Amino acid sequence: MAEPTREPTNGPLTFEELQLATRNRGMPLEALSYDLTPTGLHYLLIHWDIPVVDASAWRLRLGGLVKHPMELTLDQVRARPFQTIRVTMECAGNGRARMTPRALSQPWLFEAVSTAEWTGTPLGPLLAEAGLAPEALEVVFTGADCGIQGEVEQDYQRSLAIADATRPEVLLAYEMNGRPLEPQHGFPLRLLVPGWYGMTSVKWLTQIEAVGEPFSGYQQTPAYHYEVEPGQLDDPVTRIRVHALMVPPGIPDFFTRHRQLDAGRVTLRGRAWSGQGAVERVEVGVDGSWADAELDAPGGEFAWRGWSYEWDAQPGEHELTCRATDAADNTQPTDQPWNRQGVGNNLVQRVAVSVRPV
Amino acid sequence: MAEPTREPTNGPLTFEELQLATRNRGMPLEALSYDLTPTGLHYLLIHWDIPVVDASAWRLRLGGLVKHPMELTLDQVRARPFQTIRVTMECAGNGRARMTPRALSQPWLFEAVSTAEWTGTPLGPLLAEAGLAPEALEVVFTGADCGIQGEVEQDYQRSLAIADATRPEVLLAYEMNGRPLEPQHGFPLRLLVPGWYGMTSVKWLTQIEAVGEPFSGYQQTPAYHYEVEPGQLDDPVTRIRVHALMVPPGIPDFFTRHRQLDAGRVTLRGRAWSGQGAVERVEVGVDGSWADAELDAPGGEFAWRGWSYEWDAQPGEHELTCRATDAADNTQPTDQPWNRQGVGNNLVQRVAVSVRPV
Repeated sequence: MAEPTREPTNGPLTFEELQLATRNRGMPLEALSYDLTPTGLHYLLIHWDIPVVDASAWRLRLGGLVKHPMELTLDQVRARPFQTIRVTMECAGNGRARMTPRALSQPWLFEAVSTAEWTGTPLGPLLAEAGLAPEALEVVFTGADCGIQGEVEQDYQRSLAIADATRPEVLLAYEMNGRPLEPQHGFPLRLLVPGWYGMTSVKWLTQIEAVGEPFSGYQQTPAYHYEVEPGQLDDPVTRIRVHALMVPPGIPDFFTRHRQLDAGRVTLRGRAWSGQGAVERVEVGVDGSWADAELDAPGGEFAWRGWSYEWDAQPGEHELTCRATDAADNTQPTDQPWNRQGVGNNLVQRVAVSVRPV
Repeated sequence: MAEPTREPTNGPLTFEELQLATRNRGMPLEALSYDLTPTGLHYLLIHWDIPVVDASAWRLRLGGLVKHPMELTLDQVRARPFQTIRVTMECAGNGRARMTPRALSQPWLFEAVSTAEWTGTPLGPLLAEAGLAPEALEVVFTGADCGIQGEVEQDYQRSLAIADATRPEVLLAYEMNGRPLEPQHGFPLRLLVPGWYGMTSVKWLTQIEAVGEPFSGYQQTPAYHYEVEPGQLDDPVTRIRVHALMVPPGIPDFFTRHRQLDAGRVTLRGRAWSGQGAVERVEVGVDGSWADAELDAPGGEFAWRGWSYEWDAQPGEHELTCRATDAADNTQPTDQPWNRQGVGNNLVQRVAVSVRPV
């Protein structure tokens, strides 16, 4: 995420952004063709270093304002009731480098979104067993990853209000796509908060603490807030904004990624998702003219939904775009939803294509 | 890889390089701590789009200058004798963005290297069964991936001389780390040429053809050549140059990735590899003063070798570096081995650290 003290820029990409781009990992957009993203293609945003955790020595501590503090081994977590949920996760910073001016941080364009099946034990019953004290207001989650950000040395920490933390879909997850988490996804255990931007789903979880005051650690405040005027923190970043992306059609040029395809009927395909309500509509724009796409069956309450659109491609240069609308009547903007931290950018995707006569 | 016609630059990073960096995937250097890179952390360089291949319809065609052309199903490939080899693979373009001026292409810094266990059937016996004609000179491998590069529309194709193609370690691989290949690694079958830069190990393999003339497709020539003077193609890029990298010690700053650590004894660790001979020596430099690192046992003929070095870190600013030497007496350079395509850069890594008093 962007550091609030660093000024957004219209300048060229910096070396620091390149360092972040070569270590973090987007999902190439052609992988939108998979219902379930192959594990090795799932996007990754890692603030500091990936911790190496020894699962046999690892413990999850649950404490703070609870009647019965606990310390759990991984086997104890795995012995609890479990469920598997298909979840589309998106980085809060997705689209950051498409903002003008752009925040200086991981320079995502479109590709920080993926879908996986996560298996874990629901957090709510565990908190109930621990016995939340009446004055408990939030739950703070701590990861084993640590580093420096905004000149603050810190462990990664984020909080959720009790009502959000105890929703039935909130899991302590130890499997992804049917296998133990790989290190980069939070081995041995991570929080999973379906419908929320990815920074909420704390990886390498070591501690859960009930607290009586709003948590104000760095990753909660000032980070991950919509902020237009410097220092004026508007809403915190929470649920994923409605968003559709398409598989760029045709074939790419290696360097420019510009697409070429042959004239004729082509099925445009993509996915759409929202953390604020079911996707109810996807429109495809061809050279500024919009029409409804066909929606696939829903992929689950927290998973993206496929869509397709039959296009009769005529020779020449064209611009394709798409936008989704959710059940809460949120629609993607065609002008950038700008903010200083470069978060929550669901500006419509535009894909330039050259159609060749056949 | 860089397109030979595009001029190297000292200018800022371009949008095209950013597009490549967000879709290709480096291995974060802290993952040098794993003997075997977790599948989802293995580096990825994909020229065009990842093809979606239907394994049941897929066939491998083996033809050209052979007595018995073949067409094999995946089950037929999997029914053949197999072996599993641990292989360190590196992208030919690793380190490209550290060259001055730099070629315009995927802007790797250090991180395009990983190690996996690959399982497959040796190619040599299959070619022997097919019966290479006496006039066969090279074997051309074709992948299912296609696109445009250097204004040439093409399927991905690379060749090997018969002697290289029939070495016992050259596999047609269908498993990585004990599981079927994920799509991005070449599902359902890829070539694997241990010891050579990654572009040789053609993914999504569909065709193997014995030919009587040197293959001159785009990815063979002009691409992947050491080229200092424009248009003067020197040696082709083949075996991996000797290379060592270290796990950056301490903790990073999120944005700058600058490292801080506490004063005292710290074990520096890393890996070293070469496709041109076993790694026989690794040296660690501290502020320009070199000393031998301790080598772990060899990791296998084609896998990286771990090393460590005990450093008594004194408070202040320091620069750490490392360099390997192989059995053929190749050593990493401390001045850049510059070329126009930005390939084969094994310039020593330099890691700046701030050591804090304790």
